[in-house]
Amino acid sequence: MAGFNVHSILVTGANRGIGFELVKQFLERSNPPEKIFATCRNPDGAQELKNLASRHPNLVIVQLEVTDPVSIKAAAARVEGLLKGSGLNLLINNAGIVKTTTLEAETPEYMSQAFLPLLKKAVQESAQKGLSCSKAAIINMSSEAGSIKNVLAWEFGQAVSYRCSKAALNMLTKCQSLAYRELGILCIALHPGWLQTTMGNTSDYQAPMTVDEGVRGIMNTLAKLSEKETGAFINWEGNLLPW
Amino acid sequence: MAGFNVHSILVTGANRGIGFELVKQFLERSNPPEKIFATCRNPDGAQELKNLASRHPNLVIVQLEVTDPVSIKAAAARVEGLLKGSGLNLLINNAGIVKTTTLEAETPEYMSQAFLPLLKKAVQESAQKGLSCSKAAIINMSSEAGSIKNVLAWEFGQAVSYRCSKAALNMLTKCQSLAYRELGILCIALHPGWLQTTMGNTSDYQAPMTVDEGVRGIMNTLAKLSEKETGAFINWEGNLLPW
Ligand SMILES: NC(=O)c1ccc[n+]([C@@H]2O[C@H](COP(=O)([O-])OP(=O)(O)OC[C@H]3O[C@@H](n4cnc5c(N)ncnc54)[C@H](OP(=O)(O)O)[C@@H]3O)[C@@H](O)[C@H]2O)c1
Ligand SMILES: NC(=O)c1ccc[n+]([C@@H]2O[C@H](COP(=O)([O-])OP(=O)(O)OC[C@H]3O[C@@H](n4cnc5c(N)ncnc54)[C@H](OP(=O)(O)O)[C@@H]3O)[C@@H](O)[C@H]2O)c1
Repeated sequence: MAGFNVHSILVTGANRGIGFELVKQFLERSNPPEKIFATCRNPDGAQELKNLASRHPNLVIVQLEVTDPVSIKAAAARVEGLLKGSGLNLLINNAGIVKTTTLEAETPEYMSQAFLPLLKKAVQESAQKGLSCSKAAIINMSSEAGSIKNVLAWEFGQAVSYRCSKAALNMLTKCQSLAYRELGILCIALHPGWLQTTMGNTSDYQAPMTVDEGVRGIMNTLAKLSEKETGAFINWEGNLLPW
Repeated sequence: MAGFNVHSILVTGANRGIGFELVKQFLERSNPPEKIFATCRNPDGAQELKNLASRHPNLVIVQLEVTDPVSIKAAAARVEGLLKGSGLNLLINNAGIVKTTTLEAETPEYMSQAFLPLLKKAVQESAQKGLSCSKAAIINMSSEAGSIKNVLAWEFGQAVSYRCSKAALNMLTKCQSLAYRELGILCIALHPGWLQTTMGNTSDYQAPMTVDEGVRGIMNTLAKLSEKETGAFINWEGNLLPW
């Protein structure tokens, strides 16, 4: 660990689990940070952290509820004051929230759940083997902007929340494909191409393709989809995109 | 397009853009679907759809606000009635919502924004070239459960919303790495390993590694991170994970 010389560090969700252990192991180093900010939502109840802090003056417990912007701002101001003009080297966003809402992903999830009985019925009516759009399928309109690997393929505006929601939608599509494969339902995340719609034409970006052309490609691609593609992320031409 | 024979289809956000064009091109096919459900949130204002519907009796306009579960259920019931016992072949979740909230991703985003001035200060104080945790870094605690490619690496429970939120967090990390690289701040999405915490020990899953062991690995890995890894998704051993 040569050269690992962190002056200050902040860990969220530090009262238990991985966050607490990170704090402990930073304190045990031969060159511990001068300031370790251990945040938790309920400092009064954080007995183990308090025990550690009584032995380590470089450990400061800070109240922080990570879903509350007001609490975040207050914590940032307090930390700034305690750093007395110094900076913060290492920010560890550790606090885990299992119950979350991802609107763009949950919307197609609700949609798919609500329409699942009708999709299943279509499977029963079909004599086809395998999976196809003619039998039963869910197409989630994603975007190449949601490809984490190809994040530079679309540079017009950062659009961070749009990108995050499409990455979440891609994960949902993958989960749906695993859950619905046995039921006979094909699931696809589709990038429609950069098309000249309201969304595709902004002040700093003019999409290259007409909607007509893009949708012709989509129609061709939908017609060819099979069980081989279920759970995949493809574009209007049927080419695979990386996650 | 041999064999493309869809009896029924539903497209959300069908009043304009890609959704509208999909409806149009399905209607133009030599074997159009017997039922095309074109949903939009404001049917009264959907003049182009209404014009199409007046010429195509197989086109049905259905009111549907995709962020409202009540509206989704009402639409599903109406579609079921109109299908008279038949199933639905093709569900196209097209309606796009650009403004979204992804709690798990937005939380670290708020956190990082609130602490950005202090991280920048740490960069100014540092004589180091390149990026490192000793200089300035944001570590977002992700999970292999958020790897879309390795979705089968963790089979204990579907945990769809957890998976989607971690996929979104991975995208956030990538976006942060692009935005903050020039500022001198390293950004990493880290899978801590399957560790025996409250979260890691559920009724149907017992994590294999102790928290102590996992965090020792994390500490070693943090010490070695450089500009080569910024924007990457790595595990406690420093190995790259796929998105
Ligand atoms: N155009 C592109 O280059 C491009 C590229 C990649 C991905 N996409 C994706 O393709 C899909 C369609 O985009 P587009 O370009 O056709 O966009 P658009 O022209 O802006 O149309 C968006 C459609 O979604 C509907 N919508 C939005 N919020 C809704 C809600 N809460 N409930 C019901 N409907 C709602 C809109 O209805 P209102 O008329 O009522 O607002 C409209 O019909 C989106 O998922 C988008 O992310 C587009
Ligand atoms: N354990 C594993 O095997 C594993 C595997 C992959 C990823 N992870 C990730 O590692 C991180 C830590 O998990 P863990 O295993 O240490 O979980 P844990 O033992 O359940 O601890 C979770 C921590 O997060 C805090 N927290 C939750 N919601 C919060 C909120 N709204 N505001 C502030 N703090 C909040 C908790 O505080 P309270 O005590 O107040 O509830 C607690 O300190 C999470 O991001 C998790 O997704 C864990």
